[in-house]
Amino acid sequence: MFRLIPRQEKFFDHFKEAAQNALGGAQALKEMFDHYRDPQESWKRIVDFEHEGDKITHRIMRMLNQTFITPIDREDIHALTTALDNVMDAIEAAASRMVLYKIEGVTPEAKKLCAIIVTSAEQMVKAVSHMPKLEDVEEHCIEINRLENAADEIYREATAALFDGERPPLDVIKWKEIYEILETATDRCEDVANIVESIALKNA
Amino acid sequence: MFRLIPRQEKFFDHFKEAAQNALGGAQALKEMFDHYRDPQESWKRIVDFEHEGDKITHRIMRMLNQTFITPIDREDIHALTTALDNVMDAIEAAASRMVLYKIEGVTPEAKKLCAIIVTSAEQMVKAVSHMPKLEDVEEHCIEINRLENAADEIYREATAALFDGERPPLDVIKWKEIYEILETATDRCEDVANIVESIALKNA
Amino acid sequence: MFRLIPRQEKFFDHFKEAAQNALGGAQALKEMFDHYRDPQESWKRIVDFEHEGDKITHRIMRMLNQTFITPIDREDIHALTTALDNVMDAIEAAASRMVLYKIEGVTPEAKKLCAIIVTSAEQMVKAVSHMPKLEDVEEHCIEINRLENAADEIYREATAALFDGERPPLDVIKWKEIYEILETATDRCEDVANIVESIALKNA
Repeated sequence: MFRLIPRQEKFFDHFKEAAQNALGGAQALKEMFDHYRDPQESWKRIVDFEHEGDKITHRIMRMLNQTFITPIDREDIHALTTALDNVMDAIEAAASRMVLYKIEGVTPEAKKLCAIIVTSAEQMVKAVSHMPKLEDVEEHCIEINRLENAADEIYREATAALFDGERPPLDVIKWKEIYEILETATDRCEDVANIVESIALKNA
Repeated sequence: MFRLIPRQEKFFDHFKEAAQNALGGAQALKEMFDHYRDPQESWKRIVDFEHEGDKITHRIMRMLNQTFITPIDREDIHALTTALDNVMDAIEAAASRMVLYKIEGVTPEAKKLCAIIVTSAEQMVKAVSHMPKLEDVEEHCIEINRLENAADEIYREATAALFDGERPPLDVIKWKEIYEILETATDRCEDVANIVESIALKNA
Repeated sequence: MFRLIPRQEKFFDHFKEAAQNALGGAQALKEMFDHYRDPQESWKRIVDFEHEGDKITHRIMRMLNQTFITPIDREDIHALTTALDNVMDAIEAAASRMVLYKIEGVTPEAKKLCAIIVTSAEQMVKAVSHMPKLEDVEEHCIEINRLENAADEIYREATAALFDGERPPLDVIKWKEIYEILETATDRCEDVANIVESIALKNA
């Protein structure tokens, strides 16, 4: 006797896996910023999460090519997979700048942004896990939206503060970009939320 | 006797309302830059438009969840609503930077960009009001495209001019970002135009 | 006797034309950076490619409005046309900054990025030419993805190097933007690849 596992569950499993991997990357980023002991080593750990994310992406794409009937539209699977990958990419990009720009210490605002990224990624895992029913994903999407606004608020204050102090211009340029990338990570979570909502609406 | 108001008209009404609200925000931004008397106060007024926009967005989303048969695809309603919201967000972001970066005076180029944003938002109201027939929206979409090009031209010249003068680097960084955000507002109008066109094509 | 040319071939011909035009622009950009003799003149040549691209775009849009039955979804024709146009726009934007910012010499990293843009545009021509069958476009899309990663790597190193030297801050700001735009050109090629993949999946 055998059980035929429906293909659709597998797709949703892989989305969840990609979201959880991005959450792992977010947590590693927060740890990097909170302690900031060996930035090079922390970056490497985050790059590992990025590579794991790439593997999940390729697995979904291969499955997509081998599956005739998909639980949601093929192009939506493609869009969601790409969006989940983009979250991980933004997290890795933030870590990379700390090393490449030889940043010696972390600002409190950067730590706050990392904490929001983790919370947003947690909500993203929940939204993706509860797909595709709209009523189940919506509260998480609204929360991701709220977190993106909170991150934008911190980003604005932090960037404005860069100009207030005695910082040399090159330092301002570096930190402005780091704050931007951290804020972008919450934008990418919001992109995922928008796609999850859009898929839920389509399949309502 | 009663009349059954078709749901679709309501959706289109709300899109128009969101576009008109963004136009209101654009006009408030132009006034802020033209006179530049009490930037903090002007910013507050624009934040009010942003909050009004958020309310309209939520109203559309709620209606979307309660409506079985929609006049255009559910995911297109979602995409257009988000795009209209993004226009308003860019306008508010521009105003915020003037206050947060403690900008003391306005450049002629910034005023020109604000004027283009108003004109582009006017065209956006017309395009959205004439949905969904392609022949009715197209001229406005073409005009929005032209205005985006004009804004890009001014943005380029204005940014290049920042490097020509005696401006201190931190000042250059601030103004470069303000010009960028102003130009982005016309990009966001173009995004709306693209979605309106795409919806028109789908429903042709 | 006459042959009725099916409409769909025409659409695919025009996509190919747009991709080839962007490749022409990319090659002109590489030549500009490799020799850097008369930047103003080189920029003009690239603007010619951009205008040619606009003409192709308008031709596709007009055909779209006059065609009842399209080989792929109308909104996908619209999305792909816009994405191809965006590649050309990024290439022109890079050229423009060299002139507007009065850049006197070219860095080796900028030349490397131009070389990647050309290779990526070549792959884009191939992907677009082999539409819409997934197995025929996929290897080119994967290659475009790989090239985008390579460009990002160079962009990071190049930007980090800007801070290491003795460059004045205003110079750093200028070059940082130029590197960003060059990297963006490869992102735009990736957007095209994503849309081509998405269309292939939809029509699988």
